Amino acid sequence: MRITATFLDEISHDIPHQNWGADEWDLDFRFMKEAGIGMVVLIRCGYRRWQTFPSQVLIREEKCYQPPVDLVELFLRLSTKYGMKFYFGLYDSGRYWEDKDFWTNGSYEREVAINKAVIDEVWNKYGHHSSFAGWYLSQECSRNNGKIVEMFSTLGLYCKQVSGGLPVLISPYIDGKKSISQYTTQTSRDSGISLEDHTSEWEQIFKGIQGSVDIVAFQDGHVEYDELAAFLATNKQLCDKYGLQCWTNSETFDRDMPIKFLPIKWEKLKLKLEIAASVGIENAITFEFSHFMSPQSAYLQAGHLYNRYREYLESDNH
Amino acid sequence: MRITATFLDEISHDIPHQNWGADEWDLDFRFMKEAGIGMVVLIRCGYRRWQTFPSQVLIREEKCYQPPVDLVELFLRLSTKYGMKFYFGLYDSGRYWEDKDFWTNGSYEREVAINKAVIDEVWNKYGHHSSFAGWYLSQECSRNNGKIVEMFSTLGLYCKQVSGGLPVLISPYIDGKKSISQYTTQTSRDSGISLEDHTSEWEQIFKGIQGSVDIVAFQDGHVEYDELAAFLATNKQLCDKYGLQCWTNSETFDRDMPIKFLPIKWEKLKLKLEIAASVGIENAITFEFSHFMSPQSAYLQAGHLYNRYREYLESDNH
Amino acid sequence: MRITATFLDEISHDIPHQNWGADEWDLDFRFMKEAGIGMVVLIRCGYRRWQTFPSQVLIREEKCYQPPVDLVELFLRLSTKYGMKFYFGLYDSGRYWEDKDFWTNGSYEREVAINKAVIDEVWNKYGHHSSFAGWYLSQECSRNNGKIVEMFSTLGLYCKQVSGGLPVLISPYIDGKKSISQYTTQTSRDSGISLEDHTSEWEQIFKGIQGSVDIVAFQDGHVEYDELAAFLATNKQLCDKYGLQCWTNSETFDRDMPIKFLPIKWEKLKLKLEIAASVGIENAITFEFSHFMSPQSAYLQAGHLYNRYREYLESDNH
Repeated sequence: MRITATFLDEISHDIPHQNWGADEWDLDFRFMKEAGIGMVVLIRCGYRRWQTFPSQVLIREEKCYQPPVDLVELFLRLSTKYGMKFYFGLYDSGRYWEDKDFWTNGSYEREVAINKAVIDEVWNKYGHHSSFAGWYLSQECSRNNGKIVEMFSTLGLYCKQVSGGLPVLISPYIDGKKSISQYTTQTSRDSGISLEDHTSEWEQIFKGIQGSVDIVAFQDGHVEYDELAAFLATNKQLCDKYGLQCWTNSETFDRDMPIKFLPIKWEKLKLKLEIAASVGIENAITFEFSHFMSPQSAYLQAGHLYNRYREYLESDNH
Repeated sequence: MRITATFLDEISHDIPHQNWGADEWDLDFRFMKEAGIGMVVLIRCGYRRWQTFPSQVLIREEKCYQPPVDLVELFLRLSTKYGMKFYFGLYDSGRYWEDKDFWTNGSYEREVAINKAVIDEVWNKYGHHSSFAGWYLSQECSRNNGKIVEMFSTLGLYCKQVSGGLPVLISPYIDGKKSISQYTTQTSRDSGISLEDHTSEWEQIFKGIQGSVDIVAFQDGHVEYDELAAFLATNKQLCDKYGLQCWTNSETFDRDMPIKFLPIKWEKLKLKLEIAASVGIENAITFEFSHFMSPQSAYLQAGHLYNRYREYLESDNH
Repeated sequence: MRITATFLDEISHDIPHQNWGADEWDLDFRFMKEAGIGMVVLIRCGYRRWQTFPSQVLIREEKCYQPPVDLVELFLRLSTKYGMKFYFGLYDSGRYWEDKDFWTNGSYEREVAINKAVIDEVWNKYGHHSSFAGWYLSQECSRNNGKIVEMFSTLGLYCKQVSGGLPVLISPYIDGKKSISQYTTQTSRDSGISLEDHTSEWEQIFKGIQGSVDIVAFQDGHVEYDELAAFLATNKQLCDKYGLQCWTNSETFDRDMPIKFLPIKWEKLKLKLEIAASVGIENAITFEFSHFMSPQSAYLQAGHLYNRYREYLESDNH
């Protein structure tokens, strides 16, 4: 099992920024390429009032701040330069996470409408780049709550319609024992969702989003290591049943530590990748290379993780 | 808007120490100078039983530990060497923060008396340095509580009296949504002080400290980014009314992250500096260069922030 | 006072991993040796389902994961190469910490039985290494609770019996003001154990473990700095009375900071070492060199701490 894709954590909301300029990003794409990564996914183009490119839609509708640099343009150029695919992550107003009446007070409709306008704007502005290869729906979810199915299917279809059918990715999480806020000191809770409930809720979701979403990459860090195989197997079977590609989003940060978050131990990453392979999953994306796996990361553990992973690729064991 | 001054975070109480020796401090002053910083402010000369220089007063009165090096002497020499101004931060016993009866049980009077003795000692010992340029009252405040006006005016006047009128700096904080303990995992609370209450309380404080304090540099990290302009405008107007210099203390660490604290994203710092400039503020100090903005910081994000800031200075946009 | 020993934090449970390979570990042993460290102690050979070597006992009994590398073999070889002593830390199932009925529901007996089998396995597999010099009982304690005396004496005696009398080390902690979970944001609590209670409980423990345990190295970070001398003096007197070697475990991480955990300020480490020396303690181990004091640590503060410590060794003051 190889990691062939990574998220780009811009705009970040919980991982401190590295303050890289164009030169550092260029070098990082080179590091990715040399490790076999051929696809990058912008985690979101904007979050609340911060944005990755000067979107006229978001400045007008959300009073977003003027960004100091156009990261979307930069990432697309670097993707083209290094022969990689770029997936564009939609806007996240923050209301989805913070407003408990999101689904019923008009916020949901507003989130969709703004995102449709952003999709139009982005495709007009950047669609000519040969590396523009797909879309990422940035609203993460773990349960069949609210109108999540309608939101994914509406936005996914609109992305496809505008872009001539480019593929759409989502990356949900399992509502497991480690599904807790990063703004607590705990690292786990007493119980998570049962495998049965997870299965039945995701069966409903997949039924509703087939045709609108192409790739589902569940985050692999919210359940205990000894529960992971069962959940990944279920995810794979459900994806196969509904014609979705099942990837694993193999997190490269460690959820078990008081410091939230530093790079994961190589042994844990290796175990998770091997569990995914054992249930028939063929593709891994990671969240994310630049903080947690890059030789130039501010977290020096990341560079060592990169070396361990490269050694693994060169060995006969992967 | 340029950052022309920085705090020196010694004695630190919540930011892990970098364990620098004289060589690293010399290099850091050079990095500061090259980025246009001409003034350094010792955040406090002592905190509880830790101190920056071997104060006979603090050893006797507060049983402070013997420090391994005289940082005040070192910082003054480096300030002279690099043509920078040094401001001396007063002693903080910790009681101001921890003792809820501080104002009424004699602790306040003791804090003032010890600090007067420290001021005498320090001026006798270090006043001959040409770089000794001012004083910093290390008791931070956000509201017109207790005898804060009396404390600032008493200590400020005493500093001036002893030193032939050297200027006195304070750096309060706004009691905003992000005014929460660093010893919680939260990064904000539901509500902060209203602009009206902030204005009326600070009008009272400024009325009481004019003539005793020369520079007021509010910390800029305790309100949301979209509230900052209104609060800074008020601060500027009040300072002008009472003849105080209004600076901004533009924090270079990020208050929005689960890890407390790592360097801020350049985009956020740039936005805060530009907001300050937009309301007529002309000087910025930062807390603080050596951890969060230095090319040799243990946090590598800081070096990249330094590079982004230097690029900004060299561009036409600042 | 010199630091002559360090723990090796494998398997770590709360300090993020550095992802070092064999080359980095070799270099780290060299750094240790150059700083006067002649003994390394594996903090635990396994924790829950993670392990440092491919133990057939732990794979069978605890369903432990196959580790990617045999760290015990690596550490023993490096110890031999650099002329250092290696102490082997026993297995920790996690139940000791997490199961409140550990002493009464059979878990205690199981923990002892598994560890006896691990001791046999390890001695058979690695006992031929000339650097295999002792054992570490990895169950930390602070009070005379449950069957802690019986556990220490049983396991300590078994280690000695199997290995021809090699010495046994424990490293308890003082139940002081800073004895709080690393999974909270607080750094201290209102009160800790009294010196009297500490003394009487440890008198009972020492009485029970004499002959089974050789070295007691109390962790020095759980009491306030101004309480440390009294507790260390008591520890020393009790050890002398019961024929145990009294060392100090001088922690090189800082317990006073919101980030848990980064390297300690040199001034604090120096103070703690000098307090230990002042009560007659002659040996210091640290937790631990590789994260908090190594020139190649991911925490760059650690390299500066190493330099400050080396300067101290070369001065006349230690």
